[in-house]
Parts: sequence; structure tokens; C-alpha cells
Amino acid sequence: VTTTVLDRAVRVPVAGVEHPGPSAICRIGLLGLGNVGSAFARLARDPSASFAAVGFTPAVAAALVRSPAKPRGSDLAPLITDDREAFFAEPVDLVVEALGGVDPAFTLVSRALARGIPVVTANKSLIAAHGDELSRIARRHGTALRYEAACMAGVPFLGTFERRPLAARASGVTAILNGTSNYILSALAAGGGSFAGALADAQRLGYAEPDPSMDISGADAAEKLTILIRLFGRLVVEPARIPLDAIAEVDGEDMSAAAAWGGAIRPLARAAWRDTAIRAHVGPAFVGGTHALAHVAGVSNGIVIDAERGTQCYIGPGAGPEVTAATLLDDVAEVVTERRVRTPACPVVEAATAVTVPDSAWFLRLGGALPSDIADLLGSYGIWCTRLERRGARVYALTCSATPARIHAALDAVRAATGADAAGVPAIVEEASC
Amino acid sequence: VTTTVLDRAVRVPVAGVEHPGPSAICRIGLLGLGNVGSAFARLARDPSASFAAVGFTPAVAAALVRSPAKPRGSDLAPLITDDREAFFAEPVDLVVEALGGVDPAFTLVSRALARGIPVVTANKSLIAAHGDELSRIARRHGTALRYEAACMAGVPFLGTFERRPLAARASGVTAILNGTSNYILSALAAGGGSFAGALADAQRLGYAEPDPSMDISGADAAEKLTILIRLFGRLVVEPARIPLDAIAEVDGEDMSAAAAWGGAIRPLARAAWRDTAIRAHVGPAFVGGTHALAHVAGVSNGIVIDAERGTQCYIGPGAGPEVTAATLLDDVAEVVTERRVRTPACPVVEAATAVTVPDSAWFLRLGGALPSDIADLLGSYGIWCTRLERRGARVYALTCSATPARIHAALDAVRAATGADAAGVPAIVEEASC
Repeated sequence: VTTTVLDRAVRVPVAGVEHPGPSAICRIGLLGLGNVGSAFARLARDPSASFAAVGFTPAVAAALVRSPAKPRGSDLAPLITDDREAFFAEPVDLVVEALGGVDPAFTLVSRALARGIPVVTANKSLIAAHGDELSRIARRHGTALRYEAACMAGVPFLGTFERRPLAARASGVTAILNGTSNYILSALAAGGGSFAGALADAQRLGYAEPDPSMDISGADAAEKLTILIRLFGRLVVEPARIPLDAIAEVDGEDMSAAAAWGGAIRPLARAAWRDTAIRAHVGPAFVGGTHALAHVAGVSNGIVIDAERGTQCYIGPGAGPEVTAATLLDDVAEVVTERRVRTPACPVVEAATAVTVPDSAWFLRLGGALPSDIADLLGSYGIWCTRLERRGARVYALTCSATPARIHAALDAVRAATGADAAGVPAIVEEASC
Repeated sequence: VTTTVLDRAVRVPVAGVEHPGPSAICRIGLLGLGNVGSAFARLARDPSASFAAVGFTPAVAAALVRSPAKPRGSDLAPLITDDREAFFAEPVDLVVEALGGVDPAFTLVSRALARGIPVVTANKSLIAAHGDELSRIARRHGTALRYEAACMAGVPFLGTFERRPLAARASGVTAILNGTSNYILSALAAGGGSFAGALADAQRLGYAEPDPSMDISGADAAEKLTILIRLFGRLVVEPARIPLDAIAEVDGEDMSAAAAWGGAIRPLARAAWRDTAIRAHVGPAFVGGTHALAHVAGVSNGIVIDAERGTQCYIGPGAGPEVTAATLLDDVAEVVTERRVRTPACPVVEAATAVTVPDSAWFLRLGGALPSDIADLLGSYGIWCTRLERRGARVYALTCSATPARIHAALDAVRAATGADAAGVPAIVEEASC
């Protein structure tokens, strides 16, 4: 009884099933009624979101949830159940997955795809862990898997580059992929209270994951980065292999020092690749004032793509239930109105071999009683400063490009020689004088 | 004999014609072999641009040109002709239009679409003048019209928003749409010589149109702006109705003054709409240093979209034959591999009624012998300055928001009272103290 909605231009049977007419209702099976799932169900009912002009009306026909007895708007779906068989017995044209996490999302999404039902998901963990396998299942069954909301939820670009092989030729990406982290660092930069307070605000606004440790540790951004590495680098890598630094390493004083130099400290996810080797890092980093991501503040996300035919940059809202729900519904519109009942053929994807931290300039914080020849001490370890300035009890420095090993050796030496605090984050700057 | 290439997933007849197999050659009829057309023909033959992985090989089967005797690479197409009937007698799967200008492109593109042949074009003038009509012809004949390269050639976003009705809900756009103008102003800002020299460089690099007056006057950007107004505002407006100011109004000293205040003067195209009324302007404008377009220099283009669910920004290469050719070829890949044999249904589009210059802050240049109470003089005309500074023989000022009428009245008054030069461009700044 499963059918697939097609557009009005050419009504043809696909995979042997019959299709509803042009102004058909698109019957949606919804996996999950949490923050994102219920925002989606509400938006699908909202007359202002009507897709009548493009030939269909979305309608949530059934929702699969963990706790059907939990109080919620009873109008969100005609059937709200925790029974998978009852859910899959409903005739639906499309499945929207808003459970989050790898299990049971993987089982349920695989099952839908294997029945030829297109799936739209916002689930970065699922796509990071199983995107390649799910795409293969979708292609094998001639149906669509769409996940525009899985990375930079409010900025449509993943599907665009998936469809455009020449534009997607890139050697690396630099991105702000986690709205919670950027919100927290922006709040610290504005002098607006504590780390904990900023985190609580982000959670209240629905930007943070239920467990914020994924946001703060960088693990959430690492998952999204692996999705980008697959798309732009054609390499598969497990998120756990991406080196992480937590944003808790930086404080308000560091942010002020960065601002005084015209820049900002942002939660960056970076990757560059060559053959099957990847240089990647997720963590706080200094960004110079003229960089495209320098002024991407608050919950916004942004990506700079080092593309073969010139640098591209995409910036916009990164998270939030309403934004994510709208992106899911736009994915539904794409699948329905464009008869995109298959996942685009992927270029050959290989497994990554090495994953190492990239060389870069560094933004250093040196605390405590430092010798006056601190620049010479760093220089004796091969670290050359382009800028060095005392601010209160600390000295801040910007260095020329150095390997992570070299910078850590130098910081160890400073600590050993002076007993002072010494730490550093990567710096994305134009190096005029190195 | 015209056929339409379909993908391998579902081989179904569309509109009664038979389709080649999955690794089929896509036979392309190319209109024009100028800078862009010949770059496209070369790229289509380049093995590194191979689309074998996505299931097809592009091949230029015939090219229609004005002067077939003109010397050029004889390997660009098997048939190079100025005979329209000979061109249309060739069996092709798709037409790529790279003639530029409205005529005869309109006649030729209409003819292809009316025969059900998908068309990919880079022609902003054509789409600005006849985009709505051509889309209707394409839809009526169940075929595709794609024009990603017509606006911000190296940044794929038009097709994305066309497919995504919720993301495309916006109240306005602010953009750098003309690479030549941005290149020239950037060169002036860098102190790198004269207006004429920068223009010659841009032409030599293939960024400028054959007739640079379209670039410099703002007419080229106005055409592109009307394409954006149709997409995001669902309003049709003739390019000639967009108010223009030429970039020649600003000089190197103005650029230095803008830089001293942390900003830049950029060639902006702006539009905002409400119902069927549009506020729009194309011309040089001051942009504050934290604005997303402040550091978009050289031949790069960028757009900030005031979308319902948050501001979005897209930045990248704006022009150049190689970039445009790659975008055309990615459009071909989309049409071929996604069976996107129709143009998406457009939301209802209305005709614009009023088109007026928006209110804004202003960046003023006042020359000659000015009275010391110049701020008071401006104030007596209702113009309040947030910043005012003498630089050499000139005074520069940033004002609070004012109507164009009021600012021009004040500038007239300054000229009348002092005999001094007085001019202004719009300023896109955060107005903290107005």
C-alpha cells in the first residue's frame, strides 16, 4: 500500500506503484515527537507553510514515539504509537526521522528505505555513522534519502553540492558547525556572564542537544565535519578519529584579547585532505578580523569551502527546532515536487587513512611570572611570534605556522622554565610577515 | 529525434520519447562560442570534468555562432554553423545558451524549450527580461530551464532556493552582484592605480562584459537583482525601473576614508519588498566592518538574504569564463542525472507597483571650504551625524537613517550655502546611537 508522491508534470509509475495526483496529500510517517518532531508536525499543519502552489499538502499520518502516554498536543498526528508494526502498517508516502541518535533511527530508516519509502532526516549522528550505507540502500531501492538539516540546519547547501560535481571539488573546509558552542563563546566575548549561564540560555532556546557534552566537547561538530569530508573530500572517516579540543579551555579574557586584535575565538571545525590523508581539528580557534567567519556570532553557523574554482562561504542559522523543522519540510518538498525518488549517485568514496591535526599559526596565552625574553624562549623552540602583548596578568601572542608537536613542545618548555600557565589554540590568519 | 537523458535508477519514458542508457552521452547543442561558450566546450571535453561516476558523458554536438569562419579551436564542436535550421536539425539532448543578450537568445531558447529540449543558460539579461515567460514555456512542455550561472556565477544558490519554498521566504536582499565593479573599487581601495587601469585589468581577466558600461553603470547588477526579486520576493520588475548610481562617483580618497572607519565602499544591489512595493537601489555604498559583505573583495560576489527564519549569506566567485562554464556544466549534470526534466512550479508572481530608493544611513563627502558648524547645518535639514571627520581637503560623515529626498535636500543646501562639493552614498551600518 506504500505509494510515492510524484509531481503533476509527468505522472509515471515508479517501481511499480501508483501515484496520487498533483495536489495530493503527502502522507508523512514521523519518527519522534521531541522538540524537532513536534515543531515539524506543527509546521506541516500551518497554513502559512502551505505547498499548494507547488502541488502537494503535507500531512503527518502517524508518529512513532517512545512514550505514547506522554502529554502533548493531541492534534500533532492521527496516530501516535510506540508500536513499530502499527507505524509501518500505515500507508505513508514519506518518512521524516526526528529521533536523533544512531539507534533505533538506523533500524527504522533502513526499513523505510528498503520498502522504497523516501526518508528525510535531521540526524547528524545517523548520517555520520551510517550515511554511506543508507545512501546505498536508498539507491538500491530507487528512493531518496535527504539530510539537509543534519549540518548547518538553516543553511541549504549539502543537497546543492551533492547535485553539482564540479562545484563540490574542494581541498578543505573551515566551519562553525555547532550553534551552542558559538553561542557560548559569543556570550563570553560580549562579557555576558559565565560559561554555565550561556549554556543554560542555549538549552532554554532549544539550541543545545539534550546532553550538552556533545556540543561542548566538539563531538557534535566532529560528526558534522565527517559528513562534510564525505561530501567534499569523498572520504569516509569515523567521527571518533577527529581530534577535539573543548571550548571550556578558553575564557572571557582570551576573548577580549582576541577582540583587541580585531579577531575572535570561534568554535571551528576544520579539515583538509590529500589522497586519503586528512588533516582535521575541532576546537576553539582564533580567527582574524577579515576572515569570513570572524563575525559569525551567536547561534549562527558558517562554512568556508576551499573549492577548486574559488573560495565559497555559506552562513546562516545553525540550529533550533523551528529552523530544523522548516529545513525538513523543504526536503519533503524537494522529494515530492521533483520526483527525486532516488539518492544521487555518489562519486567513489574511500576510507581515510591518516587523520592528523593541521599545521597552523597559533594564538597563545601565557600566564604568571614570565621572563622578559619570552619571545626568545619561544624562538629557541622554533616558534616565532608576529604579535606579542601583555594584557593584565597574561601575555598573548600570535605565532607563525608551526606543527602541533612543535607548539606543544614550546608550551611545555615555557611551563617548565617559568612555572607559568601556557596554552594555545590554532589561529586562522593571513601571515604577512612569517 | 530529440531525446532526453534520464538516470539509471528508473528508466521511464517521459513525454513519449525514448531515453539513452545510464552511461549515455549527453548530446549538447551550444549557442555561442565566445569566452563562455568556448570555455564550456573545452571543459566538456576535459577528462577531469568527467561525469562518468554520475552516469553520463557530456559532448558538444553542434554550436550555433555568428561567424563560423572565425578562427577557433576546430575541436570545440563537430558542427559549427551560423544556420539555425542546421543547428536545430542536429539531435541533441540539451541546449546550453552562452550568447548573452536578449536577442536572438530569446527566440532560440524558446524554440528549444517548445520542442521539449532542456535549456541551461548563463544569460542574466535573458532571464531578467523573459525569465517568467521562459519558465512557463518550459513547464508547458515538461522540460527544464536552468540558469544558476546567471547571477553570482560561481555560487550555487538560485536553484537551491527555487526548490525550497520555506527557505526562500525573505523580505529583502543585499548583494554584490557585479564582479567588475567590485574588482575596480577593491583596486581603488588598495591604492592600486586608476579607475581605467582597474577596468582594463578586469576586462583582460574576462570578468567584464564586452561592453563594460553595463558593469560600471550598475545595469548588469540591476538585471541580476530583478532575478533575485522574482525568486525571493515573487515580484516581477523590469531592470530599467531599478534606481542606479554609477561606481565612478567614488574615488580612492573615499575608499581610504571608509577603510579608516573599519568599513569599505562596495558596489551594492539592494532590494526589500512589502506586498507589491519594492525599495531597491544599485550603486556604491558604505558597508560597516562587521557586515558579512565588508570583506568580500575583488571579483567575488556575495548575497545577504533577510530570510524569515534568519539571515543567510552566500559568498564566492562571481564571474569569469571558467567559473561560468563549470556552473553551466553542473546545471547540465543536474538536469541529466536527476531527471529534472521540468522547471519547478513557481509560486504566484505578481508585478511590482512602486520601485523607490530605500531609506538608509548615508556616508557623506563634503569638499571645499566648509563652515565649522557643518554638523549644525546638516542638522537643520534633519540630518544627524554619528561620525564626522576631516581628512585632508574633505570632511566625511556617517549619518542616521534618512530618506533619499531629505539627504539630497541637505546636500543641495550645503552646496548652495558653501559652494562646496557635497555627495553621499548609502551606508549599511548598525545604528547604535540614532
